[in-house]
Amino acid sequence: MFKLPAKLVNRVSTIPSLSSSILKYNIRTMSSMKEYDYVVIGGGSGGTASARRAASYGAKVLLIEGRGKLGGTCVNVGCVPKKIMWYTSDLAGKIQHGHGYNLYEELPIDKEHLTFNWPAFKEKRDAYVHRLNGIYEANCARENVDVAYGWASFNKDGSVLIKKLDGTEESVKGKHTLIATGGIPLLPKNIPGYEHGVSSDGFFELEQQPKKVVVVGAGYIGVELSGVFHGLGSEVHLCIRGDTVLRKFDSCIQDTITEHYIKSGINVHKQSQVAKVEKNATGSLTVTLNNGTVLSDVDTLVWTVGRRTLVDLNLDNVGVKINNKDQIIVDEYQNTDAQNIYSLGDVVGKVDLTPVAIAAGRKLANRIFGPEQFKNDKLSYENVPSVVFSHPTSGSCGITEKEAIEKYGKENIKIYQTGFGAMYYGVLDESFKQPTKYKLVCAGPEEKVVGLHIVGDSSDEILQGFGVAMKMGATKADFDNCVAIHPTSAEELVTLR
Amino acid sequence: MFKLPAKLVNRVSTIPSLSSSILKYNIRTMSSMKEYDYVVIGGGSGGTASARRAASYGAKVLLIEGRGKLGGTCVNVGCVPKKIMWYTSDLAGKIQHGHGYNLYEELPIDKEHLTFNWPAFKEKRDAYVHRLNGIYEANCARENVDVAYGWASFNKDGSVLIKKLDGTEESVKGKHTLIATGGIPLLPKNIPGYEHGVSSDGFFELEQQPKKVVVVGAGYIGVELSGVFHGLGSEVHLCIRGDTVLRKFDSCIQDTITEHYIKSGINVHKQSQVAKVEKNATGSLTVTLNNGTVLSDVDTLVWTVGRRTLVDLNLDNVGVKINNKDQIIVDEYQNTDAQNIYSLGDVVGKVDLTPVAIAAGRKLANRIFGPEQFKNDKLSYENVPSVVFSHPTSGSCGITEKEAIEKYGKENIKIYQTGFGAMYYGVLDESFKQPTKYKLVCAGPEEKVVGLHIVGDSSDEILQGFGVAMKMGATKADFDNCVAIHPTSAEELVTLR
Repeated sequence: MFKLPAKLVNRVSTIPSLSSSILKYNIRTMSSMKEYDYVVIGGGSGGTASARRAASYGAKVLLIEGRGKLGGTCVNVGCVPKKIMWYTSDLAGKIQHGHGYNLYEELPIDKEHLTFNWPAFKEKRDAYVHRLNGIYEANCARENVDVAYGWASFNKDGSVLIKKLDGTEESVKGKHTLIATGGIPLLPKNIPGYEHGVSSDGFFELEQQPKKVVVVGAGYIGVELSGVFHGLGSEVHLCIRGDTVLRKFDSCIQDTITEHYIKSGINVHKQSQVAKVEKNATGSLTVTLNNGTVLSDVDTLVWTVGRRTLVDLNLDNVGVKINNKDQIIVDEYQNTDAQNIYSLGDVVGKVDLTPVAIAAGRKLANRIFGPEQFKNDKLSYENVPSVVFSHPTSGSCGITEKEAIEKYGKENIKIYQTGFGAMYYGVLDESFKQPTKYKLVCAGPEEKVVGLHIVGDSSDEILQGFGVAMKMGATKADFDNCVAIHPTSAEELVTLR
Repeated sequence: MFKLPAKLVNRVSTIPSLSSSILKYNIRTMSSMKEYDYVVIGGGSGGTASARRAASYGAKVLLIEGRGKLGGTCVNVGCVPKKIMWYTSDLAGKIQHGHGYNLYEELPIDKEHLTFNWPAFKEKRDAYVHRLNGIYEANCARENVDVAYGWASFNKDGSVLIKKLDGTEESVKGKHTLIATGGIPLLPKNIPGYEHGVSSDGFFELEQQPKKVVVVGAGYIGVELSGVFHGLGSEVHLCIRGDTVLRKFDSCIQDTITEHYIKSGINVHKQSQVAKVEKNATGSLTVTLNNGTVLSDVDTLVWTVGRRTLVDLNLDNVGVKINNKDQIIVDEYQNTDAQNIYSLGDVVGKVDLTPVAIAAGRKLANRIFGPEQFKNDKLSYENVPSVVFSHPTSGSCGITEKEAIEKYGKENIKIYQTGFGAMYYGVLDESFKQPTKYKLVCAGPEEKVVGLHIVGDSSDEILQGFGVAMKMGATKADFDNCVAIHPTSAEELVTLR
């Protein structure tokens, strides 16, 4: 990687607006309170990225994290350990393809003989996450970002009180303050016995693999965790309120993943909600659905029914406003209603994705502390590509077909789509085959690509480049204008008719 | 898939130039020779694609293929069976990752216990290819493309003589004629004993897996085949003339793949050429290199030292010119020196890639037989993405760093690059780790992306979308403007600093 250009380092003293602001601030404060150019509350992806970017411009930065380890949801209980579990589950499936490829024919590498040493692997996974925590900390140390572990809240004078994990308290003052506290999983407290289930955070604490598991929720977290459990050999019951999973995604993703999950042996309970949960003397659970279905001998119940923001920061003290979903209200530049207080990431709830928080955090730091060219830097939330680590993976960029019809009118959109079996499955038995479905939503006579929705192997990796093209305003002709790469799956996206 | 719009079907009679041409032609020919709008010589990717596209516009088309089965190099002895073998080899490696992921711990799924039933799998692979041959044939039948199996050559009157595989002969006349005969592997006839080795065509005929194999040649075919053999457990000796493989690619691909092949246990004999090949009484080969190295007990020797074109068509009879590499000379519209005779694909040798031939073939048919909007249709050979099924895969779009320096001057290009271990390898032992290297070559103050070179898992699938973006003229800022997809490898391409 290239080092930071020298011109970007130690710039803070040369930025007039900031220097003069610091002056004013020195006059106003009277205590011996520590002063920072930038106080960042929340050491997750967005906060850390913003803190480091600010420090790269020479700003004096404090990063406050309540958990005692950096990296936030993504590193500790989200993207990272989830992807590692996805790899595990995917590999378990791949090994079972061995005989189809005439490999290891003498060994029973089939579904029946699958074993997975969950406790041993959990240790390995935890160690990986722990290493990342350390890398985050080392990055901050190297780049002169101070880190304080504790829970932050606002004092009335705008300074930030830190109740440190070591029991002490300290208040610090920031010229600029960022709230990037993120969120945590919701538990459905209205359901009797809900407390016998765990959240997705709890999933990552499981010391043993459940033989039988109930996952509740049709969102991407429920889809990802049920896919992982299933691939690793657990009996999985996925309870969803509607008829399909991934309701926020295009119908082609909803339908393809729902059908494939059912075909592959996941017990999808459609149109169902959990009525009650009972814990038995043996420790197992009985989960009763509102349609009368009783799931007994359940080892683990995982709620993936939504997330809530972390806004318990005495925001009233500084006038930061939240909406009716407890999300902090910000403008397009991440400004809250309070001067020099900003917010981004899951706590603003616009697009709950790690790279969105990172990009917003960097752009914000660019704008506040960076050179003139960045003074209007802000993140565009349009055409943000995102993927789901379902089995197989899926991904989307832009709007769904339904949204496109609403926005442009049915007569002004054109859909290109295809479904096929990837070559990899050509020599495998039907039971191993995973679907591939691609859909392009084009608008207007120029056929601008306003939506791209893909399901199938490597969708997670395929999407990024197409995201760049869509962000550039790609039309169907631009897609077609690129010669295909053969033999791949991605090539089908540039040869659709 | 969408059907062809009705407006494009049965158009031929409404295209004035074509209709009048047919008239002239009817007057000129006198025999009962069958007449076609389009005679296509070569049933490979390019020929078949062009024939089908022409037929979709209502043209009367004859496709002539000498092999007795459609699909050409790609389907029969190239991309398709090669990719299937790559899958096999890749999967063999993945299975060995099982214990790193604590899967199937009781089974010895390690390198030492690897078995591969080559003969059984070859049958399966052949059956897959045979199915594709059938699909090609069925597509032609359905779309009214006549198919003749036989060897074609030009008569002096411009008609095409077909020496059919059934022993009969027939001459046909085409208003337009396409030469898409492709090429075949070269054998180094100057090396004593060369005939004991096989070409890449011969690779696909091998009925048994060699225990010890010598692959000669640093090009992508040699790299792919040696990777396949190695992954399946053969002892591999790769003889290359220089110090690196893939010499036509950017240095980052050359170096990364060469180093990784050596690290993974392939015996790369640098700066070497084969001096002689001897066949022993036992049937094994002794291969002597010009540096004195003697490789004995070799089961199989594979020459991947280049390819030659198939131009034995009595081209002189019609005035089609070839260059000193025996490649047919065409202009940017695929026109040869002879009127109404065109050529494309490997026989013109511009970019020897299946999708290039397909795209050129479709565009040519669009131009000749399609609606007005396509009358100037031609293929651009700039920014054609291509991948190598090395282990791990690699891919390129645009020009190399070296070419960029020559073209723009060193001071006008900027290189962004990164190397990292993909998350998949995070829990695996060092010996299993495969590298990831990405390089962006940017030119001018606007940092236009003129070269993209990637090595690492899923590079084959990652490249396509970025190819679209590059074809659109993407700059570094366009790359950065797209939010990353986390956690993936591809995301590193939009966050390079």
